[in-house]
Amino acid sequence: MPFVNFNTKKVVKIWDGIYGTLAHSEQQTFGHFTIDGGTILPEHSHVHEQWCHVLEGELEFTVAGETMLLTQGMTAYIPSNAPHSAVAHKKCKVIDCFTPARLDFVELEKNAEQ
Amino acid sequence: MPFVNFNTKKVVKIWDGIYGTLAHSEQQTFGHFTIDGGTILPEHSHVHEQWCHVLEGELEFTVAGETMLLTQGMTAYIPSNAPHSAVAHKKCKVIDCFTPARLDFVELEKNAEQ
Repeated sequence: MPFVNFNTKKVVKIWDGIYGTLAHSEQQTFGHFTIDGGTILPEHSHVHEQWCHVLEGELEFTVAGETMLLTQGMTAYIPSNAPHSAVAHKKCKVIDCFTPARLDFVELEKNAEQ
Repeated sequence: MPFVNFNTKKVVKIWDGIYGTLAHSEQQTFGHFTIDGGTILPEHSHVHEQWCHVLEGELEFTVAGETMLLTQGMTAYIPSNAPHSAVAHKKCKVIDCFTPARLDFVELEKNAEQ
């Protein structure tokens, strides 16, 4: 800190087909992720508020029963504890932002280093 | 909500040479901004924690006396109340993330609609 190069950090697997680099601040976690085409992220929820910004690709996102196909420049906002799921129609690059920081992702990174 | 298309929202001027589209949630503000080449953002500070993710271009960023030239995939993290400034060496596209939400930017948007 105060600078992060997401291109050179250790790549962490988040889910089958979802992997990328992470950084955390006092109140937020950011992930720069690649999602393989065909990846299905099943419905789940978490206390963290989340924004998923699509940089490339096609990501069908469902939040609390509403579905939209997201492409470059489009974003899904997931309120705290809202159920959400996603299907990557094509390979995607996204920036995911969470608040508060995701301590479970901190653990994922630690385990990836072992 | 729960989806935002940053490509089609009203473009708001943030500073001379910095303009783009904004969205807000309970705890965060996101801006998808274009910064014209040659733009100088003078040193300032705010209570909001900020992450500036560079998508395209070259942005020289200074945070609390540390300076780095940021390119695609690189990010500046600005802690609450830390002094920071920036110079765009080339035209840039960035995603800026703030927490808490920037109520001053909400006002900017309202004024831009008038």
